[in-house]
Amino acid sequence: MTVTKPMDVPENGDVARPEFASWLGVSNDITRMFLAAGGIPGMINIAGGLPEPETYPVSELAEIAARAVSEHPRDALNYSPIEGLPDLRDRIAKRYSTASLHLTRQNVIITSGGMQGLDLIGKVLLDQGGLIAAQSPTYLGALDAWRPRLPRFRRIYPDRQDFDAVEALAGAQFGYTVPNFSNPTGRLIGLARRQELVDASHRTGVWLIEDDPYGTLFYDGEPLPRMIALSGSSLASSGSPYDGPLIYMGTLSKELAPGFRIGWVIAAPEMIQALTIAKQGSDMCTSGLNMRIALDALDCGLPERALPRILDTYRSRRDALCEAMSEHLTEWFEWEKPVGGMFVWAVARDPRFDTDKLLQEALRAGVCFTPSSVFDPEGTTRQAVRINFTLNASDKLAEGVKRLATATKAYVAENIR
Amino acid sequence: MTVTKPMDVPENGDVARPEFASWLGVSNDITRMFLAAGGIPGMINIAGGLPEPETYPVSELAEIAARAVSEHPRDALNYSPIEGLPDLRDRIAKRYSTASLHLTRQNVIITSGGMQGLDLIGKVLLDQGGLIAAQSPTYLGALDAWRPRLPRFRRIYPDRQDFDAVEALAGAQFGYTVPNFSNPTGRLIGLARRQELVDASHRTGVWLIEDDPYGTLFYDGEPLPRMIALSGSSLASSGSPYDGPLIYMGTLSKELAPGFRIGWVIAAPEMIQALTIAKQGSDMCTSGLNMRIALDALDCGLPERALPRILDTYRSRRDALCEAMSEHLTEWFEWEKPVGGMFVWAVARDPRFDTDKLLQEALRAGVCFTPSSVFDPEGTTRQAVRINFTLNASDKLAEGVKRLATATKAYVAENIR
Repeated sequence: MTVTKPMDVPENGDVARPEFASWLGVSNDITRMFLAAGGIPGMINIAGGLPEPETYPVSELAEIAARAVSEHPRDALNYSPIEGLPDLRDRIAKRYSTASLHLTRQNVIITSGGMQGLDLIGKVLLDQGGLIAAQSPTYLGALDAWRPRLPRFRRIYPDRQDFDAVEALAGAQFGYTVPNFSNPTGRLIGLARRQELVDASHRTGVWLIEDDPYGTLFYDGEPLPRMIALSGSSLASSGSPYDGPLIYMGTLSKELAPGFRIGWVIAAPEMIQALTIAKQGSDMCTSGLNMRIALDALDCGLPERALPRILDTYRSRRDALCEAMSEHLTEWFEWEKPVGGMFVWAVARDPRFDTDKLLQEALRAGVCFTPSSVFDPEGTTRQAVRINFTLNASDKLAEGVKRLATATKAYVAENIR
Repeated sequence: MTVTKPMDVPENGDVARPEFASWLGVSNDITRMFLAAGGIPGMINIAGGLPEPETYPVSELAEIAARAVSEHPRDALNYSPIEGLPDLRDRIAKRYSTASLHLTRQNVIITSGGMQGLDLIGKVLLDQGGLIAAQSPTYLGALDAWRPRLPRFRRIYPDRQDFDAVEALAGAQFGYTVPNFSNPTGRLIGLARRQELVDASHRTGVWLIEDDPYGTLFYDGEPLPRMIALSGSSLASSGSPYDGPLIYMGTLSKELAPGFRIGWVIAAPEMIQALTIAKQGSDMCTSGLNMRIALDALDCGLPERALPRILDTYRSRRDALCEAMSEHLTEWFEWEKPVGGMFVWAVARDPRFDTDKLLQEALRAGVCFTPSSVFDPEGTTRQAVRINFTLNASDKLAEGVKRLATATKAYVAENIR
């Protein structure tokens, strides 16, 4: 501790306050635009990443919540262990174990939503200026979580043909990927590329995050193996808990409902221990009530029972969105129809497009999308838009696309030719 | 963004992992001792700061939880606004407003427990090495929350005769106080000293935290005015929301139950806006379910109805503890009987005492207390112990004190003479 001398104090009452921390100085016009858009009546919001509330099993959850308090008052109402309720950690360990991936509660920490997992990983791995190798474009929330530690970013592109996984990871504090339906692109990292990333993580020792909020949202085809399972297969199977470099992140938000703020991180015990120290100073522990609800819901298979309805709803909305896009946006954008997740990523054919500017036009036309700049650590990628298809019904999505087409036409007329 | 070149990768598989962030290198033997103590059967734990679970109104809370889901599914199950549910922010604003303190929802952010408030304040006010003027000894959780930002600390002593509030605050990013029954000392900051602190905060512009988890736990006499209310009185009353430098922190953990992880920060709108940006990257939002429960509980006056029983329970336990201490510990320690809160702070009469070492002896004797070192940013203050009286029944407290006396006798025999 350094005991410093007090500075001179001005005698007048009108004094300046201490400055905010420097990371807060980074302004974000897009967030302000979104906030303003939220207040405009009739706005069609295809910008967010929200689930459809109609899919929540409300009456079952009300019963589970009451039971959590009345049957387990000590778990639900007390402070919990920092790492989470032992029974829930066991449940998660069991859920993700495979023949070659041996997980125990030592491999699991429960977090206050998936977002907190990102914050805690940054907290334990980043000193100021630390290097992150991040799948690009990168989930906005991950950039938000890590920004206060002023990291450096290396953009990596696992979906490109010439991707070299070792070159991508070497020298970084950690790598960051969303293999299932990346936010924002909706793309899947294929099996061969998953194996290359896992091998590179083993070879370089660099921690590799597998952020998987959308892993159950497969609309066509079957889920691919998780990278942490591939990692388990590569390690000598000794019967001891998983000790590899993969860091898997899951959440109840997309499987059940976001309001419980329950997520989990699965990793080597030394990483779980570090995250536990970090979590103690962040929020002490996650809500015991919500952990009890999660445990009960998982035990009675509620997410699995809710899933078919969720998949049907989102699949038909995705189809409706893509159909409307084909009809109205083909002239200016190209995209792939995603096989899962919550988003379509549309890239302008003309590289001169600036979708930050297009957004202003879109808001005037009554539709709000997310521009590509927010998924880039420097905000310089301006050629694409992210469109969500889970929150709005099909007819509203179609109307949103029509408005976007109107906005694009106006934008092009004024800015491109 | 700097795009860096990959470093050389060793060809063997046995590679070192990237190092953890430097703040994690600070080892903490005491925490490890506590963890070990938790597993010893028959151990009497007077170390923690936990409420008595028998005081929780379980059946009412079970009903409120079910109602929160079934009657307000959108609030309870969706993502919430980052700052919290508007109705709950209004409720808190109303609860703390006085004739001279005008609060609106712009003055309030809901946090995931009081602990998150400390983390977020550090996040928005501290660059690495930033200076904190902290009431000493300092709440362990605040030190934990701020440690990752590697701050400097100025120890301040508002309960000393020669305390100069302006000198204490000037030049710091913020001041930190627990005016009601400080953790760990259990002491109250008197009215005159509160006014001096408020005046100094106004005069220097330095933000001043009033951390108030124990504000309702008055066992003798009446509560003193909050510093934020004194600050409101000092400002020109213009009808606009409070805009002074006080940052008030409250929590539901001691008024109702900790398992909901609901806290709140009340401050000037510009501070609430900064905390909101910080919270977005920490956990996105607090649990909607828990905020709905908090709102319902506050609306129906549940904390106020639960309070008399809590006060009776804790008052009689405090008395039992102090009586046992008078009988068994007077030879070695002195203390003041606290008029509220959860702790007695006992200082060894002999300055050569090292309570870190005494703790080892105490664990052997079957009792676990908190040594003073953990309440000091440098861990060098070794002369005192913190004893909790809220969790254990009176007879158990008396037995714990007897064991502590046995341990002290053995410690003194071996170490002091």
